[in-house]
Amino acid sequence: MKKQARVEYQNLEEHMRGEPITPENNEILYMEKDNIVTLTLNRPDRLNAYTESIYMGLREGINRASQKQDINAIVITGAGRGFCAGADMDNLKKTNSGSTITPKSKQEDQLPSENLGPSIAEHYKTRFGFLALCRKPIIAAINGPCAGIGLVMTLFCDLRFAAAGSKFTTAFAKRGLVAEHGISWILPRLVGHAHAMDILFTGRVFLAEEAEKIGLINKCFSAENFIESTMDYVKMLSETSSPRSISVMKAQVYKAFFQDLNNAAKIGDEEMQKSFSSEDFKEGVSHFVEKRAPKFSGK
Amino acid sequence: MKKQARVEYQNLEEHMRGEPITPENNEILYMEKDNIVTLTLNRPDRLNAYTESIYMGLREGINRASQKQDINAIVITGAGRGFCAGADMDNLKKTNSGSTITPKSKQEDQLPSENLGPSIAEHYKTRFGFLALCRKPIIAAINGPCAGIGLVMTLFCDLRFAAAGSKFTTAFAKRGLVAEHGISWILPRLVGHAHAMDILFTGRVFLAEEAEKIGLINKCFSAENFIESTMDYVKMLSETSSPRSISVMKAQVYKAFFQDLNNAAKIGDEEMQKSFSSEDFKEGVSHFVEKRAPKFSGK
Amino acid sequence: MKKQARVEYQNLEEHMRGEPITPENNEILYMEKDNIVTLTLNRPDRLNAYTESIYMGLREGINRASQKQDINAIVITGAGRGFCAGADMDNLKKTNSGSTITPKSKQEDQLPSENLGPSIAEHYKTRFGFLALCRKPIIAAINGPCAGIGLVMTLFCDLRFAAAGSKFTTAFAKRGLVAEHGISWILPRLVGHAHAMDILFTGRVFLAEEAEKIGLINKCFSAENFIESTMDYVKMLSETSSPRSISVMKAQVYKAFFQDLNNAAKIGDEEMQKSFSSEDFKEGVSHFVEKRAPKFSGK
Repeated sequence: MKKQARVEYQNLEEHMRGEPITPENNEILYMEKDNIVTLTLNRPDRLNAYTESIYMGLREGINRASQKQDINAIVITGAGRGFCAGADMDNLKKTNSGSTITPKSKQEDQLPSENLGPSIAEHYKTRFGFLALCRKPIIAAINGPCAGIGLVMTLFCDLRFAAAGSKFTTAFAKRGLVAEHGISWILPRLVGHAHAMDILFTGRVFLAEEAEKIGLINKCFSAENFIESTMDYVKMLSETSSPRSISVMKAQVYKAFFQDLNNAAKIGDEEMQKSFSSEDFKEGVSHFVEKRAPKFSGK
Repeated sequence: MKKQARVEYQNLEEHMRGEPITPENNEILYMEKDNIVTLTLNRPDRLNAYTESIYMGLREGINRASQKQDINAIVITGAGRGFCAGADMDNLKKTNSGSTITPKSKQEDQLPSENLGPSIAEHYKTRFGFLALCRKPIIAAINGPCAGIGLVMTLFCDLRFAAAGSKFTTAFAKRGLVAEHGISWILPRLVGHAHAMDILFTGRVFLAEEAEKIGLINKCFSAENFIESTMDYVKMLSETSSPRSISVMKAQVYKAFFQDLNNAAKIGDEEMQKSFSSEDFKEGVSHFVEKRAPKFSGK
Repeated sequence: MKKQARVEYQNLEEHMRGEPITPENNEILYMEKDNIVTLTLNRPDRLNAYTESIYMGLREGINRASQKQDINAIVITGAGRGFCAGADMDNLKKTNSGSTITPKSKQEDQLPSENLGPSIAEHYKTRFGFLALCRKPIIAAINGPCAGIGLVMTLFCDLRFAAAGSKFTTAFAKRGLVAEHGISWILPRLVGHAHAMDILFTGRVFLAEEAEKIGLINKCFSAENFIESTMDYVKMLSETSSPRSISVMKAQVYKAFFQDLNNAAKIGDEEMQKSFSSEDFKEGVSHFVEKRAPKFSGK
């Protein structure tokens, strides 16, 4: 299986292709393939520096993928040699003279699978909360430099993989800025508060290898086969896990930050009971007993 | 000391021996030796797949050990080559046609040392909460495959050691099931929410070595000397630490999830004052001053 | 730059010099150099065992450094071959016969930069809370054995570096004591509750290398160049990060333990807006555009 996957994706340019997310916005490209949506930050000449168009394109892409029953996973990556260089410095310079980089989005997201698992909408009313609210698994495929608000965005993805040698930086302390959009909250929960303060206070550049060691990313893959290794994982996720199970468990994990154990277990019991009457549970037992690969419907 | 321990336990079968926990239930074996209770999951022909008898036997064993002043630690392990293969598939298949695998236990546990340290009973009213409520240290000795509800159970033990190469899986997503009995709550607190989502979403098999790396287990020992290495640690714990200190600190740590820092420190100060009038504190100072091994009474 | 730093600090004795923190208290030495304050525990013949004079000296030193606009970082280290051997056993023996080692400090700290970032004073009303409340970054430079209450103190520093081979122990369980001054709360948040219980229950000695692996310290440096490596880092922090950014972000991280995500993000947005009108933000953009080293004023 792995060999097939590598042939399939050996042409990175092909993989990176996709259509502009809307006719007016080509800063995010949208592609569906093999039940997986890939959203590509597409300002390669600026190392995909973050703009409001990128933000609105990501929201639109997550929305669109969320509507589709046959989409099992969403990958976010960058065009060219970078992932996201942080806020575009041209915007920051304007900010210097009065404007702002944090207008609020007025878009209302509709995520149809929100009825799976506990409700978490009230807890994630933040800029990147829409990534947690989406019931499909979201994987950041960090193919190169990842800085500032670009890094914050990845922290609200469910999983993070990075190409070996990719450079990371929070950057804020180098610009005289602070911890924005909830990174002060999510980062300590991911890597502990001591590592969080190290990388927030210094704004130093660190590599994907260190990011893996401190738990900032799930895994560091060799740069040479980065897309292939990442897509192998995502395809495995898409092909062998119950999409329904993932949706429920994603909500359970994001809810657990705001619950005590008793409530978490109570909801788990209720969700387990609901699972027993699902198609995916029937298939989950059947494919095991019949010793064959599963074909989950997600229902 | 280590050499002695290894001779003593070189016959694994001898170590694994023990009596059925009750005359009617031989799915858990109970053994006392060297101030340590070992509870052995005993369905080796089914890789110790989880049943209600195993659950009730574990509760009975923890209860019994908790009553005994001379027991300093409790080890949970599996007979044969597995630890616990998860819910017995025969039961799951029945569930498929209507029955349930989660009847509530009606047994009332009485844990006599609960007066040591802060009260935590209200926070752990869940299936495996009895492991946290027990005031003696509980060590999961994961000698082989550890899956599904078997894995959940180990997460409510205090410490986890595993034999190198042991296979772990959450399994739920492969069966169309969800995160049960509080694993959605305890797992992110142990390994971070990103690793938690990786192993929950995929249900992939991972080895003891990776489990150590992400913090799921405390340590991975070579399979060849697994029981010896684990028992060396447990005997060290039993012979050189104050049982009273451990009981109080176990409650302090499990309470801390539900406290702010000010309360944790306040309780710590109160408990410290109580310690000063304990026998174990007198012995703790005396053995240090006299440069000899301690003999703690646990009082 | 590194070579310069190493020459500068190659004479450890010179670095360790400093003046008694007050005329009556030479158990803490105070030194300012290169915009960095170093506080040195100074009872080398007792491995800097903890006394009330050490505690009061640390508070005084943190207070004094906090008042100074030109101080960008604070280092806490130990004189001689140890860092801090824990509570002085002579005091513990007295405790055995009735007195106490935990008198409350009556000193009122005034930390002038507390207006930067969210207020956190209410959450840290504990013995070592003053370290979290200080708005300057505090780095524990653990040059040797670190035990008991000495270890607790370092856990409330922001960052911890240790010399390879340095011995750590919680020690409490060996003395019949319990988890004091909030270690039951902060340690699980730093290393997870399983590693916390391991080192609390056993009181075993572990080395700096293991401390790094479990996340107890940020990094382990070679013993030979320990002070140089640590000071390289602290100078980098002092010279290239906005002191204003660090102060705000330190408060954000310590606040985040007691916030939900929505509040953390809301405060982050407000603080970001304030940053835009700061001198440090102007300098942060200018030095980047002009491709030169920054000169932050901290305002």
